[in-house]
Amino acid sequence: MAVYTVVDDLTLAAFLSAYDLGNVLSFAGIAEGVENSNYLLRTDKAHYILTLYEKRVEAEDLPFFMEVMTHLASKGMSCPLPVAARDGSILQELMGRPCAVFSFLDGTSSRYPNREKCRALGASLAEMHLHASGVTRRRPNALGPQSWQPLINSVGVRADQIAPSMQAMTQTRLDSILEAWPKDLPQGVIHADLFPNNVLFMGDHLTGVIDFYFACDDILAYDIGICLNSWCFEADGSFNLTKSRSLIRGYQTIRQLSDAEVAAIPILAAGSAMRFFLTRLYDWLHTPKNALVSPKDPMEYWSILRFHQSVSSVGAYGFD
Amino acid sequence: MAVYTVVDDLTLAAFLSAYDLGNVLSFAGIAEGVENSNYLLRTDKAHYILTLYEKRVEAEDLPFFMEVMTHLASKGMSCPLPVAARDGSILQELMGRPCAVFSFLDGTSSRYPNREKCRALGASLAEMHLHASGVTRRRPNALGPQSWQPLINSVGVRADQIAPSMQAMTQTRLDSILEAWPKDLPQGVIHADLFPNNVLFMGDHLTGVIDFYFACDDILAYDIGICLNSWCFEADGSFNLTKSRSLIRGYQTIRQLSDAEVAAIPILAAGSAMRFFLTRLYDWLHTPKNALVSPKDPMEYWSILRFHQSVSSVGAYGFD
Repeated sequence: MAVYTVVDDLTLAAFLSAYDLGNVLSFAGIAEGVENSNYLLRTDKAHYILTLYEKRVEAEDLPFFMEVMTHLASKGMSCPLPVAARDGSILQELMGRPCAVFSFLDGTSSRYPNREKCRALGASLAEMHLHASGVTRRRPNALGPQSWQPLINSVGVRADQIAPSMQAMTQTRLDSILEAWPKDLPQGVIHADLFPNNVLFMGDHLTGVIDFYFACDDILAYDIGICLNSWCFEADGSFNLTKSRSLIRGYQTIRQLSDAEVAAIPILAAGSAMRFFLTRLYDWLHTPKNALVSPKDPMEYWSILRFHQSVSSVGAYGFD
Repeated sequence: MAVYTVVDDLTLAAFLSAYDLGNVLSFAGIAEGVENSNYLLRTDKAHYILTLYEKRVEAEDLPFFMEVMTHLASKGMSCPLPVAARDGSILQELMGRPCAVFSFLDGTSSRYPNREKCRALGASLAEMHLHASGVTRRRPNALGPQSWQPLINSVGVRADQIAPSMQAMTQTRLDSILEAWPKDLPQGVIHADLFPNNVLFMGDHLTGVIDFYFACDDILAYDIGICLNSWCFEADGSFNLTKSRSLIRGYQTIRQLSDAEVAAIPILAAGSAMRFFLTRLYDWLHTPKNALVSPKDPMEYWSILRFHQSVSSVGAYGFD
């Protein structure tokens, strides 16, 4: 968590002269997000977030992300609304980086969401899947199944630094995932990174979904797999069936899953676990010891992966 | 700039149950301060700052800092007001660290303050010096003149890594400063770190003085030296006499300097430059390359030090 690019007062004033945001009351870099620099901007009109896109976000993807957020907000969803400058443009440049201003969402994220929050998350996820059908731009999932074998290859034998025989065991599990990967399931825009730190609540009421910078086109139910993994496992690694059931029920109050989607949940969740295991493994092996952002432990997702590959029926997730 | 200690939602809720701050609307780590972790807490009542004190702040100094801020705020100064818990206590513990909640001050800091801001700063500094006479606790200046020789000794010959013969040149300049160091000047509580990033403005109106964690008892006019160094030198290293004159005039609208204080300004400013040169030199040589906080260039203060040791009269600072 860090601010990578510092914006001074004169630079800020010159930048804001292109907007109608009101008079600045306060401006502070906030320690959110590992990819971008974010500032909380408060004026006499409202609160805003100013995001500067750092190297890891591809500039050509930004119009897609802006359209997703603008579109979802226009449908009434609680997500950051890109704010246009006076000339109507959303994407600007500041300190040599692409940037944009967004509406600020109230609420705080929950490190260990309870089942009411899981239900609310499920419902919001389904709303997002329905509403996002109106998005016109396309963005393939750069971290989808086709990227997993190249990721394993790039790590190679160094995987064994994490645990013995990890390279071979990962390959075996990946082979079985790719072989069983579903085709012909409903696709659309997915969030693809809807971890608890990207969802805001006041009490158990969901007030915001943020950080759309992994959003892409993929299998809709794959998003459920990502959420099951990040919302329904406890700190000790155990799977909380009650939370899973709440999340799925919440989802289905808004969008009913087909039989084929339900049947695919274990493989989609396993694929999601593989995706986060591999990117964490890669980051673990490539992050300098004193880096600004500490890498996350990949083994958390290895344990989640093993869980999904061992379930015998979708009853394990709380489907009736 | 970083958040060192992460506070999750459940821990925050348990902590806030001891206060009457209202319902939480948002909570975000902010990238301010190099010594502590700071969170911006917004409730339906007000904005607050939650500060967690990390290792570099001595716990036994905290009651002094709290008294300084509480006392100055009670005199109407715009500084953070420590907010007491329901039981009346100000210092609490969170995540194993001492912590406190403060009122939030509007405004933004100015990287290159103009002369109007310099005048406002001078006036606020003088107000602080007058009002702080009511502070009852004492704190010697841990980074005062008596600390400079030990700092040089601890750096030793590694000073020459910065520039050739730096160890010897520093010793020569320090000897002349210590020999001429004034005695019998008015003493009191000084801020001791009143750089532009610690002063907030809206337009040219000063709205806040923050970061009292170097405050201590020392020569009052030494604080002027610190401000001249951090407010009146341009990015190219040149001294801006107009800003210096404004700062000093602003100060003297509130507190008239004695002849002895005026005469001591060059040596006090040189001492201040030596103090920041030495601590920056120390940090420069001791900070790992990939640390969270980048060390500041000590040579900026070497150049400032040379300026003060070369002036021929206090007219160089804008005294009439």
